[in-house]
Amino acid sequence: MHDWSKGAAIIRGEIVPIAEARIGVTDWGMTRSDITYDVAPVLEGAFFRLPDYLARFAASRAALRLSIPEDDAAIRATLHAIVARAGLRNAYVAMVASRGAPAVPGSRDPRDCVNHFYAWCVPYLRVISAEVEARGARIWIARQTHRIPEDSINPRVKNYHWGDFTQALFEAYDHGADTAVLTDHAGNIAEGPGFNVFCVSGGRLITPRGHCLEGITRQTVLDAAAEAGVAAEVRDIPLAEFLDADEVFTATTAGGPVPVVRVDDRILGNGAPGPVSEMLRERYWQMTRRAALRDPVVYA
Amino acid sequence: MHDWSKGAAIIRGEIVPIAEARIGVTDWGMTRSDITYDVAPVLEGAFFRLPDYLARFAASRAALRLSIPEDDAAIRATLHAIVARAGLRNAYVAMVASRGAPAVPGSRDPRDCVNHFYAWCVPYLRVISAEVEARGARIWIARQTHRIPEDSINPRVKNYHWGDFTQALFEAYDHGADTAVLTDHAGNIAEGPGFNVFCVSGGRLITPRGHCLEGITRQTVLDAAAEAGVAAEVRDIPLAEFLDADEVFTATTAGGPVPVVRVDDRILGNGAPGPVSEMLRERYWQMTRRAALRDPVVYA
Repeated sequence: MHDWSKGAAIIRGEIVPIAEARIGVTDWGMTRSDITYDVAPVLEGAFFRLPDYLARFAASRAALRLSIPEDDAAIRATLHAIVARAGLRNAYVAMVASRGAPAVPGSRDPRDCVNHFYAWCVPYLRVISAEVEARGARIWIARQTHRIPEDSINPRVKNYHWGDFTQALFEAYDHGADTAVLTDHAGNIAEGPGFNVFCVSGGRLITPRGHCLEGITRQTVLDAAAEAGVAAEVRDIPLAEFLDADEVFTATTAGGPVPVVRVDDRILGNGAPGPVSEMLRERYWQMTRRAALRDPVVYA
Repeated sequence: MHDWSKGAAIIRGEIVPIAEARIGVTDWGMTRSDITYDVAPVLEGAFFRLPDYLARFAASRAALRLSIPEDDAAIRATLHAIVARAGLRNAYVAMVASRGAPAVPGSRDPRDCVNHFYAWCVPYLRVISAEVEARGARIWIARQTHRIPEDSINPRVKNYHWGDFTQALFEAYDHGADTAVLTDHAGNIAEGPGFNVFCVSGGRLITPRGHCLEGITRQTVLDAAAEAGVAAEVRDIPLAEFLDADEVFTATTAGGPVPVVRVDDRILGNGAPGPVSEMLRERYWQMTRRAALRDPVVYA
């Protein structure tokens, strides 16, 4: 008997429990991080905005010149199948395309590789834990590590190049924070490990333009702001402006918007989530329940 | 019956044929490229400069705050065991330390992860094929992609963050070259996908100081130059100076020094390997046969 409660995966065409889903140690997805992925959420039994995630995943594959046999319809069917098999009503669902290994032994040319698709799901994950969310997150702006620049790695192509994030996380922990936010090399706010960042200044919502993923949760927050009549700007945010913001929050598929109550050693809003952040968080979760944005999973 | 001819690995404490060596798709070595590795060569039945590779691997683990149970003696014994098992007299031998997965389910904190070691060997690989080496390599200086900067990812910690290399390779192929060399964001020569770079100007040997791995083959070439009385400099090489060099060659564990006969559209030395490059290549391979630098494998 398999234990499906921890998640399921499809790899090499076979659905297996997550603990048995493995990839070759010489696959270039591993040895060159030559791989792209996306993560869609299942919330209360349905995928949320799945077409947007599928479209971004397709754009990422094209940018990396990765070609897999599966089209969007086949990927969608596979994602549904693994979530149904695991029986997860709230899930973090990853779709992955890897360069694979060369068909020509010894080749070092990515054009010789057999690209492949796999996918996996686990119980819904939170980048920032529910406990931290409840009191508001403490973030640290990394000073020793900067976000990998766009002309080295394109941050809009979702990728596993997380070394800068990991170093920044350690720096944040060393300063008693919950997580880190990185700046680009020009000193503008970029993003954190697994999330976009927003700030609110003078009633206006601002989120970085570049050096970050164009997050789908970020877009949902912008959509929610538009519906609420909150003016929003997508532009560079210099560090000094960010440190002077009235409110700050993070946004990610893995947890939605999360309020920030401390940036470096500065306490925001007397240590409580700000009103605009809270309003947008509430609207975000309301939007996740809209039928038009949902693709229900059919469980056995 | 197992086929060991393609290589062997040790993973989760078990020696297996390379094709069966797999790692979990949710291991952070994969999903965050939170992993370091090193690669030592076995040449004609013996490891070459193995203590240097082991020392660099230990330094890389420390830099990433990765802790594995195995010490250098245990790692050395393991590497010998897999090469002997595969029966490879010339091998590319990888030692890897990965962040692993969190012991606390759902945690996103690297400090909660169980780090682990694995290793694998395959028949000796050449980053630049023997056919290309025979006629001299054609390299392309990537213009659209720059090497990831040191304050994002430390290039002296050997890593799988190869996205910039892969994009540069595609750019090189699009221009009819065999491989690519990247510059840093200040316009200095950095390194290529899997190799260091040298140039020779006015009889002096020059190799980049920063934005590159401190290659052990690079060091062996510098040692060979010292023995041969060739003056060497380790310093920034502006692109314009590099393009004006008399000779260029690459250096890597996976193939040794390889002469370059074309940079962009410029042909060097009438298309034939330069005399200093050839002399150093010959001395390099002589050095690989010195008993003091060799650690012979005991085959069954």
